[in-house]
Amino acid sequence: MKKRSVKPPREQPREQRFAYDGLDRVIHERARLGMLTSLIAHPKGLPFGDLKRLCGLTDGNLSRHLQVLQTAKVVDISKRLEGNRPQTLCRITALGRKRYVDYLAVLEQVILDAAAAVETPPAGKRSRSFAQL
Amino acid sequence: MKKRSVKPPREQPREQRFAYDGLDRVIHERARLGMLTSLIAHPKGLPFGDLKRLCGLTDGNLSRHLQVLQTAKVVDISKRLEGNRPQTLCRITALGRKRYVDYLAVLEQVILDAAAAVETPPAGKRSRSFAQL
Repeated sequence: MKKRSVKPPREQPREQRFAYDGLDRVIHERARLGMLTSLIAHPKGLPFGDLKRLCGLTDGNLSRHLQVLQTAKVVDISKRLEGNRPQTLCRITALGRKRYVDYLAVLEQVILDAAAAVETPPAGKRSRSFAQL
Repeated sequence: MKKRSVKPPREQPREQRFAYDGLDRVIHERARLGMLTSLIAHPKGLPFGDLKRLCGLTDGNLSRHLQVLQTAKVVDISKRLEGNRPQTLCRITALGRKRYVDYLAVLEQVILDAAAAVETPPAGKRSRSFAQL
């Protein structure tokens, strides 16, 4: 049987080593990551206004992202009376908490991969090869 | 002087505690985060095909994201001959490395904030209040 190519075999990089598929897009978006981190730190929920201030978002932006999170069932939104004023309360759901924790594990892997690379001395002074990565 | 509001003062959450403005959008996008982590681990650069496999991307997706990174001057793209075949080499720039390291510091803060919240026992059993967050 004839060989199709005369190109010498070259070591292939480990497939999808840096794909990070577990970085859940619903959570990974910057504003939503801040919102969910804020909500996970406040398990009893946060009023709309507090969440807005904590995340430095406008009313419109916060509403838009809350809708995405509510549709994905990771956040629950309810109305209640605080004194005589209606208040919108935002809470992370049990599903949201689970997805967030899973997401966090992948984020930690990114940090580990990155830190290992960043701490490596510049090319030329390295004794270790990255070819196996 | 008259007080404008009779509403009792309520402790305000620390402004923008969870805003994470340092999460550079050029880097934070999932595919680009994988690409840059891969490139920072390979300071001599990676051929287009290797980067594609490492990040689990299609030709089209990789090209599109490389263009964003090149426009932002965080990645440098050059052509060279490998044997007799032209090869596209992708490398992170010094600016890219700096921005990536800055980004990483914010990402670590997200992890710290999140881990602190996730490890907290459920509401009701907590001795610590999150009100100061």
